[in-house]
Amino acid sequence: MIKVHVYVTLKAGVLDPQGSTITNSLHTMNYDEVQSVRTGKFIELEVENTKNLEQRVEEMCEKLLSNPVIEDYTYTIGEAVS
Amino acid sequence: MIKVHVYVTLKAGVLDPQGSTITNSLHTMNYDEVQSVRTGKFIELEVENTKNLEQRVEEMCEKLLSNPVIEDYTYTIGEAVS
Repeated sequence: MIKVHVYVTLKAGVLDPQGSTITNSLHTMNYDEVQSVRTGKFIELEVENTKNLEQRVEEMCEKLLSNPVIEDYTYTIGEAVS
Repeated sequence: MIKVHVYVTLKAGVLDPQGSTITNSLHTMNYDEVQSVRTGKFIELEVENTKNLEQRVEEMCEKLLSNPVIEDYTYTIGEAVS
């Protein structure tokens, strides 16, 4: 079994109202050192070892896990654990 | 300026309907190697260098960024960049 971590973030320039709201809330709570907040998704997959795993993970990201029009993704593929 | 990455995940045992839906969708798309999917949040903060930054980030996670009853969090604090 392999753990794959996918990080989906909004592209630069895409408005992030949730991030703005968090920034404002943190300022209200006196965390004035926070300049900006961007939110995204963190997705953890447990995957059986397969041929072409990297390519297949990229396909999953492109087709389902992210919206390539407005989002970027990165991923890390962990060590195989039985 | 320092980049802080916060990862918020559901605690083990907390149901994740969104993750189950993604798993089913991936199986429908013939990605049968996927055993399970858990979803979470990825939050990127840009923060001015402050005293006790680590402690303050933990406070933000406890008070606002996560719900400690059902969620866990981890964070990484990046290098200072001017």
